[in-house]
Amino acid sequence: MSEHTPDSRRAFLTGGLVGAAGGIVTASAAGVLRRRAGGSGLLDGKGRRRVLWRLASSFPRTLDGIYGVAEVLSERVSAMSDGAFEIRCHQAGELVPAAQVMDAVQQGSAEIGQSAGYYYTGKNPSLAFDTCIPFGLTARQQTAWLEQAGGRELLRRVYADFGIRNYSCGNTGAQMGGWFREQVQSAADLKGLRMRIPGLGGKVMDRLGVSVQNLAAGDIYPALERGAIDATEWVGPYDDEKLGFYEIAKNYYYPGWWEPGPSLSFMVSQAAFDALPADYRAILEAGIAQAAATMMQRYDRENPRALRRLLDRGVKLRRFDDDVLRRAREASRALVDDEAAVDPAYRAIRDHWRDFAAESTAWLGKNELAYASFAWA
Amino acid sequence: MSEHTPDSRRAFLTGGLVGAAGGIVTASAAGVLRRRAGGSGLLDGKGRRRVLWRLASSFPRTLDGIYGVAEVLSERVSAMSDGAFEIRCHQAGELVPAAQVMDAVQQGSAEIGQSAGYYYTGKNPSLAFDTCIPFGLTARQQTAWLEQAGGRELLRRVYADFGIRNYSCGNTGAQMGGWFREQVQSAADLKGLRMRIPGLGGKVMDRLGVSVQNLAAGDIYPALERGAIDATEWVGPYDDEKLGFYEIAKNYYYPGWWEPGPSLSFMVSQAAFDALPADYRAILEAGIAQAAATMMQRYDRENPRALRRLLDRGVKLRRFDDDVLRRAREASRALVDDEAAVDPAYRAIRDHWRDFAAESTAWLGKNELAYASFAWA
Repeated sequence: MSEHTPDSRRAFLTGGLVGAAGGIVTASAAGVLRRRAGGSGLLDGKGRRRVLWRLASSFPRTLDGIYGVAEVLSERVSAMSDGAFEIRCHQAGELVPAAQVMDAVQQGSAEIGQSAGYYYTGKNPSLAFDTCIPFGLTARQQTAWLEQAGGRELLRRVYADFGIRNYSCGNTGAQMGGWFREQVQSAADLKGLRMRIPGLGGKVMDRLGVSVQNLAAGDIYPALERGAIDATEWVGPYDDEKLGFYEIAKNYYYPGWWEPGPSLSFMVSQAAFDALPADYRAILEAGIAQAAATMMQRYDRENPRALRRLLDRGVKLRRFDDDVLRRAREASRALVDDEAAVDPAYRAIRDHWRDFAAESTAWLGKNELAYASFAWA
Repeated sequence: MSEHTPDSRRAFLTGGLVGAAGGIVTASAAGVLRRRAGGSGLLDGKGRRRVLWRLASSFPRTLDGIYGVAEVLSERVSAMSDGAFEIRCHQAGELVPAAQVMDAVQQGSAEIGQSAGYYYTGKNPSLAFDTCIPFGLTARQQTAWLEQAGGRELLRRVYADFGIRNYSCGNTGAQMGGWFREQVQSAADLKGLRMRIPGLGGKVMDRLGVSVQNLAAGDIYPALERGAIDATEWVGPYDDEKLGFYEIAKNYYYPGWWEPGPSLSFMVSQAAFDALPADYRAILEAGIAQAAATMMQRYDRENPRALRRLLDRGVKLRRFDDDVLRRAREASRALVDDEAAVDPAYRAIRDHWRDFAAESTAWLGKNELAYASFAWA
């Protein structure tokens, strides 16, 4: 789903202007407040420190499964602080363009960003591990690796170079393999296929002979309709349904092996975090955890319903052939190996991540998989 | 793993005494405080309301994957409130016996309990749906059903009869099928087998001809050692390893179909909750969400490592035969059907739960399962 905000192209064009507007003095219900990173400013009527943070999201409000998590964070932090700690959410393009959220946090024009590490592999290729890698970890694995196995510490060091403290803002679960006008019956059918697929998935597809296209969300449907592309990926049933691809391309492929368990991120300005009183830091972190948990819960509620509606409209659910999956996995590993060969820091994270994957799979691949294979058959 | 506190038997014997001790006036660093449900008592130096809650757990400290979640809650709530809202954790048997946690919250001798709904099916059979049902939902499904699909609301009504407001305190993921001295090669091998397995899993096993035993944790190892039982279940690699069953029974079966995704519970006194100021309610709920998220993350980190150690010690990992699984599923459904036939409230929840399971499985059983089946093979 990388770089998928419907208006990201337009947002890029107006970015300078909106970015400037983000610096204006803002008013709150409690009166006009000086905005300052970490908010060492006014006190409220109960003697609580007033803090006002700006949240810049890479996602549009219409992607409510993701953007909604930022709103949950804002609402919960406000409730926990009796309204004294306020986080104002801005969808993609409002404060800064979708692809410049990390920059905005780095530069202090937003105290917190909602984005995805893998959008910023140009800054540091290791940031891909913060989100997902093709043929990498499932949602449970990615979460355990980040939160308990040391992944978070490794990535904190990467983000620290940008003055950022990273958290998970939730996981979507495995995304879908996308919409194809024609069936993909073998790896040969991928050659020359014109597919909209950005990011690392696109790089793997390129190695498989796909003619990779990178289109912003709003441009996909028209391109598919006029035959400029043969296929596109997006997120999963709930989000895909809204963009209407099923009206044109009826073959809906799974699994979305390039995003098997993407973890999105809250990127917090370390300086703003350090300036918070200790109780507000704890409130922020609990609010983040509470908000992050809602992402998969909502997708796990909404995707099944959306899938049923799509099937009712004649969509054909198709599984990628094993040969396609094998070649794609081989290409994915080669891509990661190539990067590891030239970037020792990347290689160190890759090795840690790969060791965890192997050990985790030896457990989940037995017990959980045996249960699911039987119970869901 | 039902009714599995190592000292639950002893705790029952001393319960009256410990229960009485739970009512004493407690002292805190800030001075002696009157304990009162909802804590409308003293203010701290910053003018914050001091609240002191007692948490009674059904779990012993040694089950740190579960009990540790209560400690996370306590620590986080304290951090968010600058120490003003204090939750003191008591392991099983300290305040009340393991099996009387729900009663303690109902009666007001603890403001919050950590337990599992399915321990209390004697109070209301529907409480099983709060935790898990044999051949029921996986962790992701159970969580989505509870938090987004309406399961929480249905169970809140059940708990309301006991003055309790329930929350998830986390999910362990699929548990294991347990330790068997001899291999189970077919359903016939289950007939007459003496197995320690409490709860609904035990009821299903009984229907399959197993001689079901109910032993407290501390009694299992000796019974297995002297041949009084042929098999036992517990939790999963991380917890099972500590009890040493692998020294005697080498066949470690999966999947643990009677607990495919058990969700444990925080049971909060509704009266105590209502007496909290609004910000403390929000702090409590965020702390619960943050603490609950750690359970699966920790198990997903520790179970793989424990499994590796067990395999290194010669444990044989074995999958239950399809015929065993099919018969067990049939018996599980019959058990639920029997209850639904005599209890309309149970039937209403069962129907809601079953509809969700079907829809959810049509999604996860395609995309997630296809990915895991390929990537983990």
